[in-house]
Amino acid sequence: MSTQPISANQPHFFEDLAELKRQLTVEGELVEARVSRAMQGLDTRDLDALDEVAIGDAEVNALQMAIDDRAFKLLALYQPVAVDLRVIVAAIKINADLERVGDLAVNIAEAARRYLAAGRALPEQKLLPRMAEIAQTMLHDALGAFVTGNLGVAQAVLERDDALDSLREQTFRELVDVISQHPEVVQPALELLSISRHLERVGDHATNVAEDIFFVVAGEDVRHHAGLTRSE
Amino acid sequence: MSTQPISANQPHFFEDLAELKRQLTVEGELVEARVSRAMQGLDTRDLDALDEVAIGDAEVNALQMAIDDRAFKLLALYQPVAVDLRVIVAAIKINADLERVGDLAVNIAEAARRYLAAGRALPEQKLLPRMAEIAQTMLHDALGAFVTGNLGVAQAVLERDDALDSLREQTFRELVDVISQHPEVVQPALELLSISRHLERVGDHATNVAEDIFFVVAGEDVRHHAGLTRSE
Repeated sequence: MSTQPISANQPHFFEDLAELKRQLTVEGELVEARVSRAMQGLDTRDLDALDEVAIGDAEVNALQMAIDDRAFKLLALYQPVAVDLRVIVAAIKINADLERVGDLAVNIAEAARRYLAAGRALPEQKLLPRMAEIAQTMLHDALGAFVTGNLGVAQAVLERDDALDSLREQTFRELVDVISQHPEVVQPALELLSISRHLERVGDHATNVAEDIFFVVAGEDVRHHAGLTRSE
Repeated sequence: MSTQPISANQPHFFEDLAELKRQLTVEGELVEARVSRAMQGLDTRDLDALDEVAIGDAEVNALQMAIDDRAFKLLALYQPVAVDLRVIVAAIKINADLERVGDLAVNIAEAARRYLAAGRALPEQKLLPRMAEIAQTMLHDALGAFVTGNLGVAQAVLERDDALDSLREQTFRELVDVISQHPEVVQPALELLSISRHLERVGDHATNVAEDIFFVVAGEDVRHHAGLTRSE
């Protein structure tokens, strides 16, 4: 942690900053749990669970606004510099990413509902639960790395994104085959395809978080270096 | 524009802030032009144009890093408060949104290439060019509203997002019909479907920008008020 004079003159600064990180962790756990519940609802055909995810994002939204508000006040009150400033700027971006993951949980739940409503079960998709697990672990690790400033963990998150992208492509090919052979299931197959896209995007947001950690810790912008490629 | 003492003490602050807005406008025009070129490439089957968009995002990425850097330095050097601080925080978020639109232009160009490579023309999709036009206008207007602080224009951007979402759903239904009747074109049809999703997401990013303007001008967070709904 830095020892700039400005921050040192403000005894509450570090408490407020720790609280900002704590709130981001809570938000991260919340959106992870919502993605997980949506995927579980799809797996167990639990419409109640899916409805709950689809309509229940008020808590995420309230938390997101509280975090933005805290970050803004930290900037305005303490006028931090160097690493403290970078942490807060990163927190503002991470907050936006986590809120989008919350939106993606809603999108997954809605697609899962439409899939179940179509009433035609497709061959079991084993790739989707694997994608969900990777995406959630990436997000969890990225947030942990943000709190601890661990660049090794952040780097590992960046590297796992390729595995997720390749599972998404595999899912795409499998579903194209299913649709070609059984055109009557095109609609439910497309819903599963959307879910795979949403999960890939959860991983993209985790990647954003991991990239922000390099900016915070090293003052470096890794986003467009090191052969990082991404698709949205 | 505000007249805080801190800013007033720093004669270069307003110049730097104006330059930040100018750079965001340039970035916005660049990503708009790239979306437009990708859609034109699809329409005219121009593989060179598509290749150019697919591989040419270095300029957007460089501009994005320059903008982040300038915003960060503005915070660190001038420690602005109130509306000036809100403009810079908003600029950081808008910059992230514009870079994602740049990524979406790449995604559109790649999907269009795969569509053309499949070698099976589908019935003409009139909805995609309309979606592109709405999405680009939303983005253009949102950035204009950010520079001028015009809330009326920002509100109009938010309202147009529903039209875009409904065109996306219409595209989805049309393509489901095409696939059901001609399962041999499932793959090219899915590429067009991805393009419609990418265009919808360009509109979502424009919506993010418009929401940030309310935060800047009114100090209000409209994101989760006023019945705003969104899908990613």
